[in-house]
Amino acid sequence: SNVLSQYSSSSIFNEKQMFDGLIREAKMSVLQEISQNVRNIKQLEYAALARRATQIQKELSQGVRKPYKELTDVCWGDPHSLGVKPLTFVRQVLAACVYPELMSSHKLPLDVRQRAQWLLGKCEGGSIGSYPASAGIPEIIQRMSKSIARRDGGVPCNPENVFISPGSQWSLTVTSLLLTSCVYAPLRTGILIPVPCHVTTITSITSLGAAVVPYFLSEEHGWALQVEELQRALESAKGGCNPIALYVINPGNPAGYVQSRKSIQEVIRFASEKRLVLLADEVYQDCVYGKNSEFVSYKKVLAEMGPPFSDTVELASFHSVSKGFMGECGLRGGYVELVNLDPNVVNYISNLNYDTTSVLAQFALDLMMNPPRPGDPSYPLYNQVRNAVNNMLVQNVKMAHEVVNSLPGLSCQPVEGGAFVFPRVFLPPRAIQKAKEEGMQPDTFYCMRLLEETGVLITPGCEYRQKEGTYHIRFCIMASQDTINKALKHLATFHTKFMKDFS
Amino acid sequence: SNVLSQYSSSSIFNEKQMFDGLIREAKMSVLQEISQNVRNIKQLEYAALARRATQIQKELSQGVRKPYKELTDVCWGDPHSLGVKPLTFVRQVLAACVYPELMSSHKLPLDVRQRAQWLLGKCEGGSIGSYPASAGIPEIIQRMSKSIARRDGGVPCNPENVFISPGSQWSLTVTSLLLTSCVYAPLRTGILIPVPCHVTTITSITSLGAAVVPYFLSEEHGWALQVEELQRALESAKGGCNPIALYVINPGNPAGYVQSRKSIQEVIRFASEKRLVLLADEVYQDCVYGKNSEFVSYKKVLAEMGPPFSDTVELASFHSVSKGFMGECGLRGGYVELVNLDPNVVNYISNLNYDTTSVLAQFALDLMMNPPRPGDPSYPLYNQVRNAVNNMLVQNVKMAHEVVNSLPGLSCQPVEGGAFVFPRVFLPPRAIQKAKEEGMQPDTFYCMRLLEETGVLITPGCEYRQKEGTYHIRFCIMASQDTINKALKHLATFHTKFMKDFS
Repeated sequence: SNVLSQYSSSSIFNEKQMFDGLIREAKMSVLQEISQNVRNIKQLEYAALARRATQIQKELSQGVRKPYKELTDVCWGDPHSLGVKPLTFVRQVLAACVYPELMSSHKLPLDVRQRAQWLLGKCEGGSIGSYPASAGIPEIIQRMSKSIARRDGGVPCNPENVFISPGSQWSLTVTSLLLTSCVYAPLRTGILIPVPCHVTTITSITSLGAAVVPYFLSEEHGWALQVEELQRALESAKGGCNPIALYVINPGNPAGYVQSRKSIQEVIRFASEKRLVLLADEVYQDCVYGKNSEFVSYKKVLAEMGPPFSDTVELASFHSVSKGFMGECGLRGGYVELVNLDPNVVNYISNLNYDTTSVLAQFALDLMMNPPRPGDPSYPLYNQVRNAVNNMLVQNVKMAHEVVNSLPGLSCQPVEGGAFVFPRVFLPPRAIQKAKEEGMQPDTFYCMRLLEETGVLITPGCEYRQKEGTYHIRFCIMASQDTINKALKHLATFHTKFMKDFS
Repeated sequence: SNVLSQYSSSSIFNEKQMFDGLIREAKMSVLQEISQNVRNIKQLEYAALARRATQIQKELSQGVRKPYKELTDVCWGDPHSLGVKPLTFVRQVLAACVYPELMSSHKLPLDVRQRAQWLLGKCEGGSIGSYPASAGIPEIIQRMSKSIARRDGGVPCNPENVFISPGSQWSLTVTSLLLTSCVYAPLRTGILIPVPCHVTTITSITSLGAAVVPYFLSEEHGWALQVEELQRALESAKGGCNPIALYVINPGNPAGYVQSRKSIQEVIRFASEKRLVLLADEVYQDCVYGKNSEFVSYKKVLAEMGPPFSDTVELASFHSVSKGFMGECGLRGGYVELVNLDPNVVNYISNLNYDTTSVLAQFALDLMMNPPRPGDPSYPLYNQVRNAVNNMLVQNVKMAHEVVNSLPGLSCQPVEGGAFVFPRVFLPPRAIQKAKEEGMQPDTFYCMRLLEETGVLITPGCEYRQKEGTYHIRFCIMASQDTINKALKHLATFHTKFMKDFS
C-alpha cells in the first residue's frame, strides 16, 4: 500500500482533486503535482551567495577591476578544494586497485601493493568493476568492525550491524526512512535536532516528510547540550508530531564543541527515559583540537553505563571518509553502525542501500580505519603528513579564534573539534534594517557584502538555524594555512569597515 | 506536513494507535513500527538460492565430494565477475586521476594523460577528493550532452536536463520519488511496468509506496510490447491507483528484445494520449546483437515524430556505466536525461541526489561517452578489445540460443540485445507438484536443483514476474566464453536428466 501519494495537501488542491479522472494537465508533472515533501525542501541561503560568486568569477575573468583577484571559498568542509593534500598511501592503494598493472612496479611500497592485493581479492573477478554486496563487502565490514571495537577500547562491534553508504548523510537518510513510523499516524514522525545544525540533515529529514523538532544548544556555555532544553523541545512537540529520535552531532557542526563523557551520559539517560532512538553524527571523531577535549563515542559511553542502558538504548552512529585529515569527500564513502535495534529492522537497511556505494569508497573506508602501522614502509610518510595536517588545523583554529575574538562585534566560543568556526556577529540595527530593505536575512546580507568587497565566500548562521535575534557566520578551517590567513585578513578588514559603516 | 508517517496501516495497529502516548514498547523500532513501504519490499527468490550457494561453497572448501569443483554464478549482469576484462584506457585514466604522480611517467599513453589532466582540471583543488556538484560536474555534463546529441543524430540535449547518479536504478528511484504525486490522493501513484521486468525496478517502486501496474510482453511475438496490452493494464488500474508513468526497458531485461522504431512510436503515442510520463530504461543501448536490430533511443523517435509529441510527451531516459562492454558496475555511475518536464520540477532532482555519486563515477561516464577516437594513441587497443568483447557476446548469445532451443522442454525467443537469456521452461506436472511439496515456486525449484547438481547459479522467472502457468529461467551472457560454455554444458546435462526424472 502507499504512503508518498496518500498525502493530502493543503486546500489549494481540493478543486483539482474533485476533477480527478475528468481533466488532466497538458503536462503531467507540473510543480504543484510533485511530492509535497520534495517541495518542502528549503532553498539554501547559500544558493544566492553562490550565484553571486559565479557572477563575480565571470566579471574577474572579463577583467572587471575589483579589490581582489580571486574568490576565496571557505564555505564547505572540503579539504582538498582548500589546499589540503590527499594522503599518498590512500591514493597509491586506490590507484593500484584501479589499474592492477601498477602492482608489478616496485615504485609502489610493499605495504601498498599488499593492501591493494588483499582488497582486490575481496572483489568478484578481482576487479573493482564488479558489484559489491549492497550492505558492503563482508571482509571489509569485518575489519571495520574490529577497528570500531579498538576505537572504543574493546566494546564489541557486530559486523552485521555495520552498513556502508555513499556518505554519512545518506546513512542518516536511510536510517530515518527506516524509522519513519507508520504507527503513530495521524501524527507525523518527529526527529529532535540541535540548533545550530548542519543543513543537509534538515534537508534529509524534511524530504522524508518527518518533522524537525529543534533544541537549542547553549552558546554562552560553549554550545553545551542541556537536558532541560531537550525536555522543553520534546514537550513543545506534543500534539504536533510524534518524536521518535534524537539527533546529535559530536564534535559539532557548525559549532565546534566536543561533548564530554558526562554530557553524553545525560543524553543517553534522556533518550532511554523518553524511548528515543539516538542518531549520533560522529563524522568529526578524528578532528579534536581542544587541549582538554577528547572524542568518546556514544557507543562507548553507552557500554560503560551498563544495563539497562547498554542493552536497550537504540543508537545509530555515523562516520565518513569525507571528514578528518583524509578528506576524501569526492569518493563518497561512509557507514552507519546500528546498536540495540531489532534485528528484523536492521535487515531492511540492506534493501534501502540501493547499491549506491562504489567499491573504491569501501576500500577508502578500509584505509581510513586501518592506516599504516609503525614498521610498515608507508608509515613514516603517512605519520608525517597526518601530523602536519593536524598541526595545521590546530594553528588554523588558534588563528581564527584569535582574529575573530579580537574584532569588536564578533565573538567566538572555543573551537574544540570539527571543521568549522561559528562566531556570533552582533549586527548593528542599521545593518539589520538595510538587510530587510534588500529582502535578505541579516547575516546573509553580511556574507553577501563580505563576498562583494573581498571575494571571501562564507555562509550565514540562518542557514543552520539560530536563536531568534542572534546572527552568526560559518567558515571552514580545514584548509591550507595560506587560505585561512587570507580569509581572516579579508574578514578583519571588511568587518571593521562594515561595523563602522552601519554604526 | 508529513507523508511517510501518515500512512495508516492495516487494522492490526488500530489498538496500538488507541494507546498512542500511553504505552510505548521497550524498543522503539520493532518491526511492525517501521515504514510500511519498507516492509513491503519482497524478499528475493534469489536469497534462498544464494544462501544454498554459500553453503555449497563451504562444503566444497571442506572437501565434500560433489560432481563439480566450483560454483558457476551467472545470475547477474556483472561482466568483470564473469571473466570479462576491464578496458585499459578507462582504468589508466582513472588511476592517473587517483594518483596524479603517475602522469609524469611516459608509460601511460599521451591521450590517457591528457584526459586525466582535463578531468582533474574540473575538480576543485585538482583532486578527486573534493566534492563535485550534486547534479554532476558541469563540464562533464556538457560533454555528456553533446555525446547524447551525437547518438541521436543531432537531436539537441540540454545539459540542464542531465543528472548524474550512482547508477541508473538510483536515477529511476529519484525520478519516481519526484513524480509520486500528492494530488490524486487518496489513490496511490501507479507506474506501469512490463512483465517480465528486472527486479530492482519493482523494489524501488514498492519502497516508495507507489503501485506497480503490470503489462505483459508477448513472448510468442519475441516479447513484443503491444499497445492493446498497455490499454488493458491501464484499465485494470482503475480505482486501484492513479497511473502516472509508463516504464519501458529497451533493450530488454530479462527478455533480450530490442524494440523497433515503430514499436517505440506506438508507445509514445499511447503515453501522449494517456498523459503518462515515459520512464525509458536504456542501459543496454550499446548491447545489440540481432542482425536486423538497431538501438534507437526514445528521445530520438520522439523528436522525429514532431509536434505535438516532441514538445509535450515527458520522458526520462536512464543509462549507466555498469552495462555495455565497459561493465564498470563497481564504480556506481549513471545518469538520467529528462525531456519536456516542467523546469520547476526538474530543479528538484538536484535536491534529491543527496551527493551520492563519486567523482570517479562521473569521470567514468565521460570516458564511456567519449571513448578514444581513431588517431588517438589508445584507440587501437581500445577498438581491438571492444570488438573482441562484442564478438564474444555475439558468440555467447548464439551458443546459448542454440543449446537452449535444442533441449526439449526449453525454448528461447531470439536474443537481440541486453545481457540476459530468458528461456521458457516447460516443467512437467510432477516437477511442479514436487516444488509445491517443498514450498517453492516451480522455477525456483528447477534453479535449486540445477545449483545442487551442477553448481550453476541462475535465477527463476518468478523473480521477474511472468504470465501465470509459465516458467522461465534467466542467466547472463555477458561473460567469458569459458564461463558460458561451462554453464551451458551443465544446464544441458541437468535439464535432460531433470525432464526424465519428472516425466
